[in-house]
Amino acid sequence: MMPSQVLIKEVGPRDGLQNESQTVPMEVKLKLIEMLEASGLSYIEATSFVHPKWIPQLSDADELLKHLPGKARYSALVPNLKGIERVEKTSLQEIAVFISASEVHNKKNLNKSVQEAMADIEQVINKSNGHYQVRAYISMVFGSPFGDIVSIDHVKQLMTALFALGVYEISLGDTTGMANPAQVDAVLSDLLKHFDKDKLAMHFHDTNGLALSNIYVSLQHGISVFDTSVGGLGGCPYAEGASGNVATEDVVYMMEQLNITTGIHMERLLATSDFISNELNFNRLSHQLRKYRGGQ
Amino acid sequence: MMPSQVLIKEVGPRDGLQNESQTVPMEVKLKLIEMLEASGLSYIEATSFVHPKWIPQLSDADELLKHLPGKARYSALVPNLKGIERVEKTSLQEIAVFISASEVHNKKNLNKSVQEAMADIEQVINKSNGHYQVRAYISMVFGSPFGDIVSIDHVKQLMTALFALGVYEISLGDTTGMANPAQVDAVLSDLLKHFDKDKLAMHFHDTNGLALSNIYVSLQHGISVFDTSVGGLGGCPYAEGASGNVATEDVVYMMEQLNITTGIHMERLLATSDFISNELNFNRLSHQLRKYRGGQ
Repeated sequence: MMPSQVLIKEVGPRDGLQNESQTVPMEVKLKLIEMLEASGLSYIEATSFVHPKWIPQLSDADELLKHLPGKARYSALVPNLKGIERVEKTSLQEIAVFISASEVHNKKNLNKSVQEAMADIEQVINKSNGHYQVRAYISMVFGSPFGDIVSIDHVKQLMTALFALGVYEISLGDTTGMANPAQVDAVLSDLLKHFDKDKLAMHFHDTNGLALSNIYVSLQHGISVFDTSVGGLGGCPYAEGASGNVATEDVVYMMEQLNITTGIHMERLLATSDFISNELNFNRLSHQLRKYRGGQ
Repeated sequence: MMPSQVLIKEVGPRDGLQNESQTVPMEVKLKLIEMLEASGLSYIEATSFVHPKWIPQLSDADELLKHLPGKARYSALVPNLKGIERVEKTSLQEIAVFISASEVHNKKNLNKSVQEAMADIEQVINKSNGHYQVRAYISMVFGSPFGDIVSIDHVKQLMTALFALGVYEISLGDTTGMANPAQVDAVLSDLLKHFDKDKLAMHFHDTNGLALSNIYVSLQHGISVFDTSVGGLGGCPYAEGASGNVATEDVVYMMEQLNITTGIHMERLLATSDFISNELNFNRLSHQLRKYRGGQ
């Protein structure tokens, strides 16, 4: 049974911009977030408190959060204790933590084993001391581009551990767009025997053009929270030039066609996509932005 | 039950090139078709015998057919008696006829009513005198961009009439990419009560990024013939800049992920897509071509 409404969590300002090679000035980010809120996006992952050395594109996280308009619920990625110390100086009410289901990816991305990454998450959650709602990402749920096997049992163990630590929702990530709809069907059939569908979100990348198919199958399993990125911002670090996160406007279009409520105003969202795609001189345009520009 | 193998019918040289504003020299078309055959495409709709005044891009149809390599099965679109007279001078064994389920689209596209278009098809088939296998397209099956209602009963009547005239397969077209997967599911559930799945093909455009979702749902209904266009050639005449036919390589990628045999050699197909996309200075790159170029 498909849901009658979904919550779209906008991750463009974080997951999108961190994967674009250009660094966007803070005033452009603020304008982007303001336009997203005016489009009806009620949840925005605004930035990341990762060390600026690793992601210089988001090094203005502390300053940015001081200037947010405040209409949406905001989140920020917090990788470690240093991050939570920075969060404490902001008015954030929600944070996101991150782990990869792929041992190799964890090593490459965080320079930690999966076990060490989980220990860091525990530290962050303990230190946050109940002050923040915590959302968790598990990336590479549908496979790893490094060739290591990601088993569904391993994913289940991570999920159980994360829920035990108190995260309210887990976003299952297909970080490199490897998932296909038959696989999503099989994985969700299994996971939903053990976990509540209302505590899961899906985070698909459109590297291979299958994100909407994967979302459609997820809807059929009753999933109602999806991470998307306006304009499809965010590339794939493992395949230069490839598509990144699924574009918010393409997801909203599909939901509208399926008579599923999003609360998002399409024309305003397209103007937002047009704005940021122009700023980035973007050439991987979303399907809806192509139509929008063609009709201008 | 999903099929274990599918037949991909390549329509890029016809449906693709007729919707691109540039006219491609005949030698480029021949090179394209040669590369498609070397990639394993066993069925190619090579051109159209429509009057050159309407589609100047394909005015070399008669000459082109004389020079085809001959490894694949070829088809050509034949709109009327003049077309069949031209076909008679070629070695073609198969032709395609065309009708729109939308009364308004038929009027705009062919300057005929649906009834008149059906009469023309009957003339073409009678004149072809059993010499050719005839495939039929019904376009706008999933809706019309002109606002007129396309009823499923109307589509069924057209299908019944076409099969009665002796067409061996009907390709159901989503000419403007309006279809969504829930709709495809509903339409096929209905049609397959009346018609044999092995006599149906699906022809999706990716205007809204839903073509792969729609193909996935079609597979679930056991459909095993799909029309695609290398590189996603072919725009949408009703939305400038919008995506056209679903890209052959994106469909082949999905089939590979679903363990469905296509007989197509991916690397060669990507080189073919790269070649024609370069020739057309194409900027709406398929997902697989982006990855391919990024990896070069």
